[in-house]
Amino acid sequence: MKIAVVGETRPGERRVALVPGLVSRLTDVSTDVSADGTAEVAVAVEPGAGAAAGYTDDDYRQAGAVVAGDALRGADVVLSVQPIPEYRIGELAPGAITISFLPAAQELDLVRALRDGGHTALAMELVPRISRAQAMDALSSQSFVAGYRAAVVAAERLPRFLPLSMTASGTIRPATVLVLGAGVAGLQAIATSRRLGAVVRAYDVRAASAEEVRSLGAEFVELDLPTLEGTGGYAREMTEERSRLQRELLAPHVADADVLITTASVPGRTAPILVTEEMVAAMRPGSVVVDLAAESGGNVEGAKPGEEVTIGGVLVWGGANVPSQLPAQASQLYSTNVVNLLLHLRSGGAPTIDFDDEIVAGCCVTHAGEVRHAPTRELLDNPVS
Amino acid sequence: MKIAVVGETRPGERRVALVPGLVSRLTDVSTDVSADGTAEVAVAVEPGAGAAAGYTDDDYRQAGAVVAGDALRGADVVLSVQPIPEYRIGELAPGAITISFLPAAQELDLVRALRDGGHTALAMELVPRISRAQAMDALSSQSFVAGYRAAVVAAERLPRFLPLSMTASGTIRPATVLVLGAGVAGLQAIATSRRLGAVVRAYDVRAASAEEVRSLGAEFVELDLPTLEGTGGYAREMTEERSRLQRELLAPHVADADVLITTASVPGRTAPILVTEEMVAAMRPGSVVVDLAAESGGNVEGAKPGEEVTIGGVLVWGGANVPSQLPAQASQLYSTNVVNLLLHLRSGGAPTIDFDDEIVAGCCVTHAGEVRHAPTRELLDNPVS
Repeated sequence: MKIAVVGETRPGERRVALVPGLVSRLTDVSTDVSADGTAEVAVAVEPGAGAAAGYTDDDYRQAGAVVAGDALRGADVVLSVQPIPEYRIGELAPGAITISFLPAAQELDLVRALRDGGHTALAMELVPRISRAQAMDALSSQSFVAGYRAAVVAAERLPRFLPLSMTASGTIRPATVLVLGAGVAGLQAIATSRRLGAVVRAYDVRAASAEEVRSLGAEFVELDLPTLEGTGGYAREMTEERSRLQRELLAPHVADADVLITTASVPGRTAPILVTEEMVAAMRPGSVVVDLAAESGGNVEGAKPGEEVTIGGVLVWGGANVPSQLPAQASQLYSTNVVNLLLHLRSGGAPTIDFDDEIVAGCCVTHAGEVRHAPTRELLDNPVS
Repeated sequence: MKIAVVGETRPGERRVALVPGLVSRLTDVSTDVSADGTAEVAVAVEPGAGAAAGYTDDDYRQAGAVVAGDALRGADVVLSVQPIPEYRIGELAPGAITISFLPAAQELDLVRALRDGGHTALAMELVPRISRAQAMDALSSQSFVAGYRAAVVAAERLPRFLPLSMTASGTIRPATVLVLGAGVAGLQAIATSRRLGAVVRAYDVRAASAEEVRSLGAEFVELDLPTLEGTGGYAREMTEERSRLQRELLAPHVADADVLITTASVPGRTAPILVTEEMVAAMRPGSVVVDLAAESGGNVEGAKPGEEVTIGGVLVWGGANVPSQLPAQASQLYSTNVVNLLLHLRSGGAPTIDFDDEIVAGCCVTHAGEVRHAPTRELLDNPVS
């Protein structure tokens, strides 16, 4: 079996789908029981694929991989972070399995090309959020990175101390951090802000997150609103009236914060506006807002992905591919997710696509000339004109 | 008695010598026992003096101060962070007391003007480092701010996690931070890096600092060199041969670090080069160096104050007026130091300059037409041509 690692080409993408340290988990004979008993697995990496994440071609060679410009040729499995670009689909071997993030609804042309090429496309963001798939959950692992990064970026932008400091020259009060959305990213932002000694408050529409927030030493903000629980740990969308009321109730908490970190996004959908420009402008001058949802529309009105804008004296940092800002470790976690998924497919031999398996059924977008992901199939069959 | 607060004019200076919250400590009748029993203390602040630190003119008015363009006129005491500019000396009332940082050896023209005007100039950096003057120690309070800032800047520039992180997608190893110089700034950099979960090592020529370093959960790097102890908690300068050997012994520790923070400076002297460009280039690509001593020549060869340069793939951040980057709280601590010194001078009446007092004798640069600070007097009498 041949596994190829693709060099990423999307601007700003610094991650790599397989770090050198994990090559041996794929090539190791003891973990490989291929169908014909020959146990031969080769990993081929495109030159420079790991460079932006700090991994050299030599690192890959030393790990047992081959570095080759034609790594894709004849590969049974193709690994990448961003989906393989449409213009490269022709390079794939017939029936190749691609494993990557694949925002199918936004990449319909690509999905069509993968389908028509007879390729099996697995989308990491569609791996079901069930216990046995936790080690394959790339959305969570990358959110973990983004949450840490959000807190560190905010601490660096804030022109004041985060921790309480008692010195011979007087006492410095701790800063207040408000985190909206207590999913994986939010919890990690809370934990990191707490590490730095800030007073942290957090809010989430899911009341179930209150315990997790409190266990990190933060205060859970209770709003007088009915709670929303979604499936798979995600929040459901809410009505406009409820959103308005929520913003109104959040306003004083936002105004009181030195740092606001927002992390509320619903996969594949436009992020909800939780904070208006007016609410931002009501914060003290010099305060800092980090919007991790900026790429999917933003939780904060006026936030721009990849930019820092100032609204009423408040700095608003809009996230853009935030995990790529810590590329070595984001790659390490992502690689672990990908390798675990691949080893799961291979259990007992060559990779098999078994739709009785909840994980495969969940994350498979195309297979054997068909689009298996129902919402994407509907979009392809009934294009929005 | 009239106390004036000067608006700072030096580029990049964002601090203010008196924050609104401390005005009442000067004007409060209970703490004021003026010589004539009238207990009248007025604080006059130049318009916009606190703006860059986040304090408005209204904040000062509400605190009981007067905001006036001619705040200096007739003031008995003049407070600033940077020394009052030479062109403004003529605005001082006869015999006025100025309290500010005053790097006398570098400001000989200014010292001469203060002397010839008959003014009493007190230099905050010359306050002796004795227990009862701890609350007036502005060098320490500002170093405290710089040390925190150094760690946060490094964490933000480093493209990896600082803390050990154990996730369902694998374990992330903690980053390693090396701090050179374990004075106030170094200890605060250590404490903040430790808060963020890094593995921290530290070195100081003073063996006495080992215990402090260890008490913060960091490892003290022992080099096979004779130790140096200075007076007043400062390190003495060392011979070139010893410096070379020290660099040689430090090299492997530097190469092993993800973050290097240097804080070694001897007040009023050029900082020692602890780390060469070659040593920086031997660090892993993506590593980060923060040189807090960049303004006084730098501990790191190639570091430039106020700039970020790259040496062999390593980012080198050179500090420039680092306390001004957290201006509100740096000002708060500095104000506390200044107020404590002023209240010390006033104990029992109007400010008195008593050279039997160790604190006054230590920090007084000019008084009654004379230069009282011996090293500065020598420089003035025997100018280096």
